[in-house]
Amino acid sequence: MTKLTPNASYSLAIELSYPNQPGMLAQITSAIAQAGGNLGDILLESQTLNLIQRRLIVDAYSSEQGEAIVQALRGIPEVNILTVCDRTFELHRGGKIRIQSRIPVKSQSDLAMAYTPGVGRICRSIAQNPETVYSLTIKANTVAVVTDGSAVLGLGNLGAAGALPVMEGKALLFKEFADIDAFPICLDTQNPEEIITAVKQIAPVFGGINLEDISAPRCFEIEQRLKQALDIPVFHDDQHGTAIVVSAALFNALSLVKKALAEVKIVINGAGAAGIAIGRLLKQAGANPDQIMLCDSKGIISSQRDHLSTEKQEFAVKANGSLADAMKNADIFIGVSVPGIVTPEMVSSMAVEPIIMAMSNPIPEIQPELVADQVAVMATGRSDYPNQINNVLAFPGIFRGALNCRASGITVEMCLEAARSIASLISPEELNPNYIIPSVFDERVVTAVTEAVEKTATKEGITLYHA
Amino acid sequence: MTKLTPNASYSLAIELSYPNQPGMLAQITSAIAQAGGNLGDILLESQTLNLIQRRLIVDAYSSEQGEAIVQALRGIPEVNILTVCDRTFELHRGGKIRIQSRIPVKSQSDLAMAYTPGVGRICRSIAQNPETVYSLTIKANTVAVVTDGSAVLGLGNLGAAGALPVMEGKALLFKEFADIDAFPICLDTQNPEEIITAVKQIAPVFGGINLEDISAPRCFEIEQRLKQALDIPVFHDDQHGTAIVVSAALFNALSLVKKALAEVKIVINGAGAAGIAIGRLLKQAGANPDQIMLCDSKGIISSQRDHLSTEKQEFAVKANGSLADAMKNADIFIGVSVPGIVTPEMVSSMAVEPIIMAMSNPIPEIQPELVADQVAVMATGRSDYPNQINNVLAFPGIFRGALNCRASGITVEMCLEAARSIASLISPEELNPNYIIPSVFDERVVTAVTEAVEKTATKEGITLYHA
Repeated sequence: MTKLTPNASYSLAIELSYPNQPGMLAQITSAIAQAGGNLGDILLESQTLNLIQRRLIVDAYSSEQGEAIVQALRGIPEVNILTVCDRTFELHRGGKIRIQSRIPVKSQSDLAMAYTPGVGRICRSIAQNPETVYSLTIKANTVAVVTDGSAVLGLGNLGAAGALPVMEGKALLFKEFADIDAFPICLDTQNPEEIITAVKQIAPVFGGINLEDISAPRCFEIEQRLKQALDIPVFHDDQHGTAIVVSAALFNALSLVKKALAEVKIVINGAGAAGIAIGRLLKQAGANPDQIMLCDSKGIISSQRDHLSTEKQEFAVKANGSLADAMKNADIFIGVSVPGIVTPEMVSSMAVEPIIMAMSNPIPEIQPELVADQVAVMATGRSDYPNQINNVLAFPGIFRGALNCRASGITVEMCLEAARSIASLISPEELNPNYIIPSVFDERVVTAVTEAVEKTATKEGITLYHA
Repeated sequence: MTKLTPNASYSLAIELSYPNQPGMLAQITSAIAQAGGNLGDILLESQTLNLIQRRLIVDAYSSEQGEAIVQALRGIPEVNILTVCDRTFELHRGGKIRIQSRIPVKSQSDLAMAYTPGVGRICRSIAQNPETVYSLTIKANTVAVVTDGSAVLGLGNLGAAGALPVMEGKALLFKEFADIDAFPICLDTQNPEEIITAVKQIAPVFGGINLEDISAPRCFEIEQRLKQALDIPVFHDDQHGTAIVVSAALFNALSLVKKALAEVKIVINGAGAAGIAIGRLLKQAGANPDQIMLCDSKGIISSQRDHLSTEKQEFAVKANGSLADAMKNADIFIGVSVPGIVTPEMVSSMAVEPIIMAMSNPIPEIQPELVADQVAVMATGRSDYPNQINNVLAFPGIFRGALNCRASGITVEMCLEAARSIASLISPEELNPNYIIPSVFDERVVTAVTEAVEKTATKEGITLYHA
């Protein structure tokens, strides 16, 4: 039922040599195809009368399949495999970001200005007028990407070091998409009080705090308390980034099927950080609270259940039952849960023209192919299907806008306007079931989100910067 | 008694225009000279038949004098001042470091490898084998520059934000001198327990911790406790960096005057982080503990005094009295204290061929000119006199070496060998009273220190890296 396609996350670079004879390359490519590999670049590295050496890029869908592809190539007697390199591991070697100097230090006078004694004048200036830290240091453009490693991607509690590659990746995306200088802070504690204290203590260097991969329900209190304590924006991307992009996609999907948000029945499966935040933002956008059913692994979050967290209580409804029960007559299914949990039968029990957003990644709640004929719109978290729901559409512009205008925080209204700005990039003429959300490489996105955030912050009177 | 020379830390860029007439530039330069300014570049920006526009770089010795120079120029009726820019402030605007991406993110496959889903494979690999965090993330080349802002340069307690320009500057020097990626951590707490906890919590991202500008005696316990708690090098530069460079200079100065370290009488004025560390390292190098007199603002640290800190007790001697008393018959004076505290009379009471290291900065304990005829060797912290004692000679190579071999810590022996390696760069033929320590721009220094550190760590069996 679940299906994986070869993709760049399991990409191999294979260097091999073989006799310069007709038909050899055909034999090689056919062996790769039979093993299920996906060929990318085929580079000629050297060629003599007798021998050809090539470098092949081959995508697999798992490490095991990658090995099977290499074995298949070894099975061709004339082929000599020189090197096999796992491109993803190669890419991460040594880390994904670096520190860059902005100032040359080549002479005594460079040193006297950038460091002692000249720097002392800058320090005194900031101590006397704390406001100048924004103009005379890195603070105004610098964001901390903070995690405790308790909920790393969909992989669970991997701890601080295990989370570092994601935090570096996030810093990389901040730089590439919004020219923001972000630095990973992976905390060696999972105690909420200690996390709150640590973030408050490191805050002076940063213009914003992006919380990441902190498990629910701890993430809610941590974010709330930090928002109250700090005068810089605090944003838990797993909650709000996801909610913004889901909302943007949903606004466009609803236009397509000509349904109104206030009237649709929405099922959200997954009551973690993302599920709760999506539910909250959709309510703010005008969804009817009585028409939202939040489900967790035990089914519908019902007011009849005991021991519900505060956040789950917010969504508790009178109804009771399983996910399948919830989905009957629903207009929208939003999955931020686990692979393959939705069946075609559940989808066929939904209202007419159902919208499915199956964002479990890399394996969605239901494979799009299984219900292609039944749904009006299908979105996933994957890049190899249409309508990819990806947080990178939101967080770079959210922070770019907030830093530009020195917003003291990021409000619900800013998130909603960000979602609307993303949705609006697709014109009514362009809008279709395979295009409800812009590509992550659509360069208009960060600008649109930045402008929406700045405009809304200004309207709400929470900007501190006067240029 | 104290004298300041114009220097780059008070450097102005003045744009001005004046009639294209003979003698105008002479009038301008003479006005600057009379106001005590030091002219650097004189650039021609535009020239017409009637008008000349120039950009002048002028160093002053204080903000007030800078203003006086500008006033002097305004006093010339034909001169029109267009802009005046404080170059030090200009240089610091926006901060001195940036984050740099190491990986392009231009396509879906870039994104799939650098971020989700590919990055998940890297996270799992680290969670399963914690050792791989050194090869698959930034950790192996990344150092935290940590402060609480309690003792910023010689300026005192400026707090976390006030210290940030120095920490950024340190990160800049780490990059420029040793290609190390350092990031500033300015903690919004001055409680030692909280500092220790915070540093332990942020440690997973870093391959080393450089403590900076934390006041004594708190710095001693903080460093000691962190060394015990962490498996990465922890190094308080104000202590050990200073001690290494002072020792290097002293080894060469003693060769010049043909005195043995074990036999000389040493006065150290200033019992803070630097003074204590210098005393400790010199003892390890072979100085006679009974011949070291440590002084603080109350004079000689005597065993007859009450309420001495543990560190001061280490140096308490039977003798009693003032700094002037201590200096009688001393061979060496090492000042890490306050401007102008030493008089020519004190110097003349010293032993023959005295060595003075007056490192209060920018104004030394005694102006070199006042005792030029009396001393065998004079060193200061300033770049405009010979023999500049500057920590940048030590810390880049110390961390480069420690990171290269993954030393678990930085030992006294490593510090001593680093000092010897710096001293040894000056050959016996080159050695003279004006050249006892290499220039900070001598490119051999970082290599020599790196090699000394790696070699000593290997000998001591505290390297964790096996290439």
